Amino acid sequence: MSKRLPRLDSESALAKGVAQEIEFGDVDGVRLTEDVAQALRGTVIIHDQVIHGYPGIGRMLSLRHGLSEQFKGPVWLEEKVDGYNVRVFRSDDRILAVSRGGFICPFTTDRLADLFDTAIFDDHPDLVVCGEVAGPGNPYVESIPKFIGDDIAFFGFDLMRQGQRRFLPRDEFYRLADVYGLPTVRRFGRHPVDALETIGEILRTLNEEGREGLVFKEDTREQQRAKYVTSNANLSDIRGTVLEILDLPSEYFTNRIVRLVTFLHEQGLAADPGLERKLGSAFLDRLREAIGQFESDGKVYRPYRCRFYRKDNAEAFFAHLKSVGGARLHLRWRSLSRQDNYWVLEYEREYAGLTGLMNSLYGGDVIFD
Amino acid sequence: MSKRLPRLDSESALAKGVAQEIEFGDVDGVRLTEDVAQALRGTVIIHDQVIHGYPGIGRMLSLRHGLSEQFKGPVWLEEKVDGYNVRVFRSDDRILAVSRGGFICPFTTDRLADLFDTAIFDDHPDLVVCGEVAGPGNPYVESIPKFIGDDIAFFGFDLMRQGQRRFLPRDEFYRLADVYGLPTVRRFGRHPVDALETIGEILRTLNEEGREGLVFKEDTREQQRAKYVTSNANLSDIRGTVLEILDLPSEYFTNRIVRLVTFLHEQGLAADPGLERKLGSAFLDRLREAIGQFESDGKVYRPYRCRFYRKDNAEAFFAHLKSVGGARLHLRWRSLSRQDNYWVLEYEREYAGLTGLMNSLYGGDVIFD
Repeated sequence: MSKRLPRLDSESALAKGVAQEIEFGDVDGVRLTEDVAQALRGTVIIHDQVIHGYPGIGRMLSLRHGLSEQFKGPVWLEEKVDGYNVRVFRSDDRILAVSRGGFICPFTTDRLADLFDTAIFDDHPDLVVCGEVAGPGNPYVESIPKFIGDDIAFFGFDLMRQGQRRFLPRDEFYRLADVYGLPTVRRFGRHPVDALETIGEILRTLNEEGREGLVFKEDTREQQRAKYVTSNANLSDIRGTVLEILDLPSEYFTNRIVRLVTFLHEQGLAADPGLERKLGSAFLDRLREAIGQFESDGKVYRPYRCRFYRKDNAEAFFAHLKSVGGARLHLRWRSLSRQDNYWVLEYEREYAGLTGLMNSLYGGDVIFD
Repeated sequence: MSKRLPRLDSESALAKGVAQEIEFGDVDGVRLTEDVAQALRGTVIIHDQVIHGYPGIGRMLSLRHGLSEQFKGPVWLEEKVDGYNVRVFRSDDRILAVSRGGFICPFTTDRLADLFDTAIFDDHPDLVVCGEVAGPGNPYVESIPKFIGDDIAFFGFDLMRQGQRRFLPRDEFYRLADVYGLPTVRRFGRHPVDALETIGEILRTLNEEGREGLVFKEDTREQQRAKYVTSNANLSDIRGTVLEILDLPSEYFTNRIVRLVTFLHEQGLAADPGLERKLGSAFLDRLREAIGQFESDGKVYRPYRCRFYRKDNAEAFFAHLKSVGGARLHLRWRSLSRQDNYWVLEYEREYAGLTGLMNSLYGGDVIFD
């Protein structure tokens, strides 16, 4: 018999050095900074509420070999959307959104009214809605799905209950989402793991549509999950993050090139001059623009523009970004102004690696490598 | 006044832990494993002979800014050839070739008769001929200049004298090379550092011809040098080493992408779909072939084929490669057989990163990233 684990609470987690205090307005709590026996990193504790962390999902390198190895029986297929992961829940009379790491996100929390109808919490106050926020108006992720308009959108993919690590079964999640009009990722039903032709067809279509890939979910006790991304997702990641080419670990780029090749191979997609060109231009286009930007502005940067309902949330968001991303992100505040129904926050992120390289280049430096 | 440094000798270098013993047949000596006050890493000491190390040459990121910053006056322009660096010299009645790191190279030493006429050492026994060995028959470098036939060729670029760190002046090197028929890299004369149009024209032509770039050399007391490579060189490096994409530091690839962009920008070369495609195919072509190779042979590898005059040199070369590259190179001996006038050594190098990835893929593994 396994020994029952002691109950997880903020004070003992802080005392053990596995948690950090978080706050947002008059809400305060802690987030777990590492996995512990009772809960995952990113778990949030606010008074007696525990919002468990969202587990990492392993990436399959091969569909054919991965599905049969990772799953026992049929799997549910859902579209994987390229955005950032949030968990949304009620705490007293507020609805809060927390990030993967367990920070209360001032941006997402502010904009919940634009993401989904939170009436679901009126009937089910203990639910935790898990999903992806994506789109060009998001402040976190640089590769932007083409099918989202000019702002942000929410794509639900799981429900949990407060205090519980497990997800609700798929059919229960789908049912509740439909009843409450919760937007979800695209669902492709349940398929046996050897339905490779059907699954491959879905993936190739997603790839042609510029979508990221699939998440596979099993309704077993282990709730096993795995993901598989399209070649397009790899191209889109490279294009979206190439200005960070001297800031991110370089493996970010080389791993995506290798995954692109394994996807093409497994999906039987032939060598294609168009794809070669897309890979080349994913690297070259924005780097060339960046040189022009440096020549006119003396730095390589990206301007951000995010909308908020409340001015204090915009300010809290920028402070949050500075405190979390601080040294790495090189942020510069531009403005916060009222436009239509929103407060529009504008700021810049400078790419230190490319800016530094261009400064060396203009200084006539040599490098020894 | 600077204090005279103690004379460099094998025993004291070994005692200080800055040297390692080397041997080749009945020749033995030491190589410096790090820079010391008297000499650079790669310096070779055989009894009382000191063959100084070949200094690293800094890479300019910008021609316009680099030339004026790095040089005081006019610079000699020479083609940079993509091969491996050797220093060739006489020791007693033998002529030996040492690598950049200071190992006596059994391959280069064996094949000297095919590289250049060593009569130069009859009149000038204390000369050290410095140059590049390149071509598809070379066992070290995977990116192969197109203008070399199916074996190897030598391209001299400097002369030193034994015991001296300095190079002979350019005109003296050119004169001796011409007198003794020593093949050299292409020479483009001496130009002021502001002759950017002329130098740019030479570089663009080299780029179109698929050549690597230029080395700039000043005939001053400091003998300042710097190099600048074409966009083609970056493409060729990527294509040549892409099977090592999971073995080399990933910066190898990302740095070359950035350099390619800065070259295009500085040389005023427009965005070009052909170039985008070349960059894409430099990554994709051989990775796709590698998957096919894994499926038929269970590993990703490259077969090597090198010719030797002497059987014992072939054996010594393979032993040298195993002892120096050992764990990293994953070598497998295939055969050593007599063909025409040569002993032909065939061996394989396995690419551990890609082989490992393909094994994981076929094992149905997931990765968390």
